[in-house]
Amino acid sequence: MQKKAVILYSGGLDSTTCLAIAREQGFEPYAISFRYGQRHSHEMEVAKRNARPMGAADHLVVDFDLRKMGGSALTSDLAVPKTGVEENEIPVTYVPARNTIFLSFALGWAEVLGAFDIFIGVNALDYSGYPDCRPEFIEAYEKMANLATKTGVEGSKLTIHTPLISLTKAEIIKKGLSLGIDYAQTHSCYDPAEDGAACGLCDSCRLRLKGFAEAGVSDPARYVKG
Amino acid sequence: MQKKAVILYSGGLDSTTCLAIAREQGFEPYAISFRYGQRHSHEMEVAKRNARPMGAADHLVVDFDLRKMGGSALTSDLAVPKTGVEENEIPVTYVPARNTIFLSFALGWAEVLGAFDIFIGVNALDYSGYPDCRPEFIEAYEKMANLATKTGVEGSKLTIHTPLISLTKAEIIKKGLSLGIDYAQTHSCYDPAEDGAACGLCDSCRLRLKGFAEAGVSDPARYVKG
Repeated sequence: MQKKAVILYSGGLDSTTCLAIAREQGFEPYAISFRYGQRHSHEMEVAKRNARPMGAADHLVVDFDLRKMGGSALTSDLAVPKTGVEENEIPVTYVPARNTIFLSFALGWAEVLGAFDIFIGVNALDYSGYPDCRPEFIEAYEKMANLATKTGVEGSKLTIHTPLISLTKAEIIKKGLSLGIDYAQTHSCYDPAEDGAACGLCDSCRLRLKGFAEAGVSDPARYVKG
Repeated sequence: MQKKAVILYSGGLDSTTCLAIAREQGFEPYAISFRYGQRHSHEMEVAKRNARPMGAADHLVVDFDLRKMGGSALTSDLAVPKTGVEENEIPVTYVPARNTIFLSFALGWAEVLGAFDIFIGVNALDYSGYPDCRPEFIEAYEKMANLATKTGVEGSKLTIHTPLISLTKAEIIKKGLSLGIDYAQTHSCYDPAEDGAACGLCDSCRLRLKGFAEAGVSDPARYVKG
């Protein structure tokens, strides 16, 4: 029987590649997505449409509303910046404790499924400056997770896999292409048009476009005509 | 200006005492509660009614549905045990990763509020055998939390306070009484009657009643007539 793994899955480039890597490593992927008060619903539509075609055995969507808390351009009326990625600064699109919250739901589901592996597509290079994407955060999370659950008490070991952590965006894209991913079916934009076309200007679009350029491949995603 | 602290608050005996202790220590308490698919809504009604009278500056209720995940008597159709607290065994009322999830939302809210202190009323003695109530879990969570957020990046230190961790239930009750808590306004039962009366038989009721007995005080809460 295949070992189950829970994959944090947003329908974007990184998490889709992460899911494909989990499959390549022999895991049966259980995709988990979060509707947390993002400004646009397009991301979730993409995730719902693509989770099973991308190979997920099951897809769990967890709903909660981070807008009640505020504190981020992604969950409030703050403007999403379109002028380029700031160096050495945590951007306003940072959502307080987002990956901590996401991983905690993944941890709960893993325990219910009897899975001992969680995949998260964080990246320490092209990572937009979010504190909860750093390798030392993931290590500390794994230690905590092994004390938080029955798994730890019963002596099994839960592992947080971060297969993208030391890859450039270009390397992620090349890896994904080698695994047969159609990146036209992935969505990365923080602030898409109503028809779902990517803006091409937010941090996430800029990192993605730079990655495709460096990989020497054209991005098949649909962008707003400039 | 008073320092803000986020308090995990269910309206029960432990978290209400915890909130009072945070006030005693000079913090301005921000109470956070979770509607996570519990079988009964009574707990949340109690929490909503009492948070501000108990001294909370604000009360945030976060909604999500752990029933989609299953795995616990508190969020599924599994029966709540009424025959006594099992020793050395994790009971079916354990909710996978619940405290990890709760603390993660508290962490996000703390960051938005500019708070560096989180209070959780876990208890290592009369603790029902949940892995996520152990001191080593809390220590690991605090380490992780300091890497997860801007707070950590900017050099401030976030502290997870567990003022009840080494107290017996009787000591918690005596502490709360000395701080003026009216325990008639707190709710602990896992499986209350429709009118909100506590069952007196579930683990939570048994631990509470034993605590009042040991404190030499009668429990002012309303129980189902046996």
